[in-house]
Amino acid sequence: MAKRLSYLGPAGTYSEEAALLYDPHAELIPCPTIPTVCRAVSDGNADEGIVPIENSIEGSVVYTLDYLISETELSIFNEVVLPIQHCLMVRPGAGVEGIRRIYSHPQSLAQCRHFIEDNFPLAEPIASLSNSAAVNDMMDSEVLSAAIAPQRAAELYGAEVIGRGIQDVTNNVTRFVLLGWEDHLPTGNDKTSFSFAFDEDAPGSLYNALGIFATRDINLVKIESRPTKESLGRYNFLVDCEGHRESPLVREALRALELQVSSLKVFGSYPWWNDSSRS
Amino acid sequence: MAKRLSYLGPAGTYSEEAALLYDPHAELIPCPTIPTVCRAVSDGNADEGIVPIENSIEGSVVYTLDYLISETELSIFNEVVLPIQHCLMVRPGAGVEGIRRIYSHPQSLAQCRHFIEDNFPLAEPIASLSNSAAVNDMMDSEVLSAAIAPQRAAELYGAEVIGRGIQDVTNNVTRFVLLGWEDHLPTGNDKTSFSFAFDEDAPGSLYNALGIFATRDINLVKIESRPTKESLGRYNFLVDCEGHRESPLVREALRALELQVSSLKVFGSYPWWNDSSRS
Repeated sequence: MAKRLSYLGPAGTYSEEAALLYDPHAELIPCPTIPTVCRAVSDGNADEGIVPIENSIEGSVVYTLDYLISETELSIFNEVVLPIQHCLMVRPGAGVEGIRRIYSHPQSLAQCRHFIEDNFPLAEPIASLSNSAAVNDMMDSEVLSAAIAPQRAAELYGAEVIGRGIQDVTNNVTRFVLLGWEDHLPTGNDKTSFSFAFDEDAPGSLYNALGIFATRDINLVKIESRPTKESLGRYNFLVDCEGHRESPLVREALRALELQVSSLKVFGSYPWWNDSSRS
Repeated sequence: MAKRLSYLGPAGTYSEEAALLYDPHAELIPCPTIPTVCRAVSDGNADEGIVPIENSIEGSVVYTLDYLISETELSIFNEVVLPIQHCLMVRPGAGVEGIRRIYSHPQSLAQCRHFIEDNFPLAEPIASLSNSAAVNDMMDSEVLSAAIAPQRAAELYGAEVIGRGIQDVTNNVTRFVLLGWEDHLPTGNDKTSFSFAFDEDAPGSLYNALGIFATRDINLVKIESRPTKESLGRYNFLVDCEGHRESPLVREALRALELQVSSLKVFGSYPWWNDSSRS
């Protein structure tokens, strides 16, 4: 039976591309928000949910981080790293000449600003609610138009792709995490994600916490601070470290950490997307 | 003579509100992008430039962070913390009945989703390129419409505000930094922002670096990692610490840090926005 996979819809977005990259055979369930993606899993309507967690240009999807820290009881089961390839698309056969409008989500328009200025200096950029909606808007437009959207949206709406990878910054990837009831069994090439906070904002707290990992030669892959909702000067720290939480070393480190912090939440252990994402 | 202040335009955006909050008498110079805001200062066309650096809901403006890390030679001279108050506005006298469209930047529409669903379940959300453009679009609309934008945009375009603070999450603030040729003189209530990176990704590197501050009882206000452009597993670390870089303690710490890292860039020291931003 196909796995039921909830994702941030609608169809034709990068989230759907990531879901298909993760499992081309999954039954995809589009949801309007990150909480509803997770609730689909909690309520048993999906087996796993996929949500974006960070983009190399835009940074962390803090809504996902905050939801992991304080809302959901789901675990991170896996990850997917999707290269973001903005495509330029038109109505089939329309060609590139005389394009007067370019539809897309404002973020994508901004990421392709130089491309637009260099190639379509006379076209007017028009905002759409999503990259997927942009293709709809373009197909319905009364003047000759183009849309900037993922390849997948062209397939869905019958548009013709006339340019690929048109974003100004080439190193544009988004990391997604898969959420489920349990995290992943050890594979020998894993990382572990967790968050922690301190009751008192003592100068050496974070240093001492990191010392637990440094003295055990456990590499930290990522560290980030997120303000707690309570007050501006207090933080939750989010860390990814190398190794599975069931390995003796990581297990011992997490136990030691628990004694030093006021709260610790382990989101889960899961395999690296693949080796090319490591170097 | 009024200070010339470049900001991320157009007029009527939160960046303009922040610029006016910082200096109501400044001569404001709108610029289309963060690099052009900075270039206005470098080229002598502005005395200072103001750029957004983090929002409590959306997280860091990584574009600004990356620009500070690797592009600009300007220093952080000051900061401004602006409460984000989304306002609902209409054509003067139009009232709230029968609104069929709500224009805004997709991010603002998302931040007000519950408000819209609860109060205008039949209205269609329409994307605009900026909050400021949304007010224009609303004023020009052929059907009864509203826009979600800052108060300032209503003043500029002659719209009438019929609701204030309509965002679903109340704790929504954006921190802006002022960039200039030099940072700020010590005031006794300062912080210092800097970034550093390591040649080798050794497990204990970050721990040892933070130890320099912990052993001197220097409080770290914020810590964040940003992937370097070179490869996915390597990071620049961005830290805000308490104290001015000219204070003996911080100066000594930064000197010690310089010996442990492959690169260190001090963005500057500047006063906290005000005491209410600290607790």
